[in-house]
Amino acid sequence: MTTYRDAGVDIAAGDETVDRIKGLVRQTFTPGVLADIGAFGGFFELPSGYQAPVLVSSIDGVGTKLKVAVRAGQHDTVGQDLVNHCVNDIAVCGARPLFFLDYFGTGRLDPDVAEQIVSGFVAACKENGCALVGGETAEMPGIYDDGDYDLAGCIVGIVERDGVVDGSRVEAGDVLLALPSTGLHTNGYSLARAVLFEHFEVDDRPDELGGESVGEALLRVHRSYLDAIQALIADDLAHGFAHITGGGIEGNTSRIVPDGLGLEIDWDSWNRPAIFNLIGRLGEVPEEDMRSTFNLGAGLVAVVPPEKRAHAIAVWDAMGETPFEIGHVTG
Amino acid sequence: MTTYRDAGVDIAAGDETVDRIKGLVRQTFTPGVLADIGAFGGFFELPSGYQAPVLVSSIDGVGTKLKVAVRAGQHDTVGQDLVNHCVNDIAVCGARPLFFLDYFGTGRLDPDVAEQIVSGFVAACKENGCALVGGETAEMPGIYDDGDYDLAGCIVGIVERDGVVDGSRVEAGDVLLALPSTGLHTNGYSLARAVLFEHFEVDDRPDELGGESVGEALLRVHRSYLDAIQALIADDLAHGFAHITGGGIEGNTSRIVPDGLGLEIDWDSWNRPAIFNLIGRLGEVPEEDMRSTFNLGAGLVAVVPPEKRAHAIAVWDAMGETPFEIGHVTG
Repeated sequence: MTTYRDAGVDIAAGDETVDRIKGLVRQTFTPGVLADIGAFGGFFELPSGYQAPVLVSSIDGVGTKLKVAVRAGQHDTVGQDLVNHCVNDIAVCGARPLFFLDYFGTGRLDPDVAEQIVSGFVAACKENGCALVGGETAEMPGIYDDGDYDLAGCIVGIVERDGVVDGSRVEAGDVLLALPSTGLHTNGYSLARAVLFEHFEVDDRPDELGGESVGEALLRVHRSYLDAIQALIADDLAHGFAHITGGGIEGNTSRIVPDGLGLEIDWDSWNRPAIFNLIGRLGEVPEEDMRSTFNLGAGLVAVVPPEKRAHAIAVWDAMGETPFEIGHVTG
Repeated sequence: MTTYRDAGVDIAAGDETVDRIKGLVRQTFTPGVLADIGAFGGFFELPSGYQAPVLVSSIDGVGTKLKVAVRAGQHDTVGQDLVNHCVNDIAVCGARPLFFLDYFGTGRLDPDVAEQIVSGFVAACKENGCALVGGETAEMPGIYDDGDYDLAGCIVGIVERDGVVDGSRVEAGDVLLALPSTGLHTNGYSLARAVLFEHFEVDDRPDELGGESVGEALLRVHRSYLDAIQALIADDLAHGFAHITGGGIEGNTSRIVPDGLGLEIDWDSWNRPAIFNLIGRLGEVPEEDMRSTFNLGAGLVAVVPPEKRAHAIAVWDAMGETPFEIGHVTG
């Protein structure tokens, strides 16, 4: 059994697994990673070219989406969920990710599960240009039941001091442009599980989901909006961005709206993805709870001045995104 | 119920608790924290004066010491354990901590427990000059049993590129100078619990512990060695440092010894703290396992060239530290 501490991934597993994981992690290394110094990863040289660099950091978990992964026996998506969620949380203020670290707490460590989880971190880190520089794996049977685990991820990014997007420029009349979510992302799973597993197994394919299984629909990866956000920032097209997580569209968008202004959301102006309608119908969930628990199909909201609306839509269209308008800021 | 997202501490609790936690967290803010921008904490301005700044980061948990905290109903020390453990992990390479983020996963959130835990983070962050800039609290009854919780912490520090202490200067003949641990610190708790709770309750005061209870002895805080390390670095007195965690004295010190060199440790040259002897005796633990599982009284090892030994000891003595020699590097 090799204790693997290189690149900060602390995991005891068979040599083959360790080598594979080591190889995977190294694929994420960006030029800033100083892999030749120190006994563990985690040395990162700041990129040059910043006048007044500000580090932006965030830490998060995956929530009970993990229980769906365990139930479905599929562990290669939750690592992506975690990285993308973290990236989005710092991207909305204009930051670019630099590096990511993960914590994996479990009962008995299953090397195959560990490798799947790490592969998820790696895939998403590569996609976001973010180095995976540290990790801790804790085997604690007294705290986690067999097969259960928890994940936490910490991301550090960078933004120019005067490039921070904080919503202070948001004005009455600004338009709310949304980008679709891929599904629930990483919020609302306690309610979703309570409702759906009352009626279905993970492999069931209810008609409403058009061929997808319940497990597949629930495990769809929380996507990254980094490139989409950066594209609007590059042309100064938005006054603010909201990553739609716990609290829903209104809860999250209201955070970047200055005091004294409000939001008007036209909840009927877009088609909600089937998974939300299925949960709402089967669980007889009040509309108010649907709106505060789920993203309802909008994963990112950009707050755009009306005169830049067409330009913002064009930029997103050109990237293959499919924006839709969901409301505006009120005075 | 207020959802508290200011300063990145995401916790739903009564207003009074939230205000107290908010106040506690703000006490840790250092000049780098840009608390006036953004909807959440986590904006940190890099300190000036570095030629080639390198960020050093690490993520860690507390391990099953948490089970002792839960058993004893005492939650104000484990936050300190986590912060100090993280600080030490980056301090040994010469880094100073900048900021810290925490993840707290639990079943049902008990606001009193949460406040105790945060108070631990705050106390240690203040002691180490490190800002608490972010946190996530996840309530997941499906993953954690009532009363159980897990903690993860991520620390980011900074070091000058040519100030990194990586053991490359370690030579045969270098002396191993240790500083005492306060107790088990944060490793070896699975074994310690298995042995001690076979014979005792948390409140029992076995003679061997000289008045302390089993719980008190086990919960002694994992201390920070930041100042002690910085003091030797300031006068260029050490070739390397090892933080003694999982793997024991030899496992950790060997990591900073270059290939081709070895270690000779005089295991009988110091008195082991009573807690270790108690565990070893009651559990009939083989000496080999004692050495690889526990710090046995040495929490930090500095690898010091013989001609600087007296100076290093004098510097540490002057700070009120009580160093002891435990061996040397062999060729």
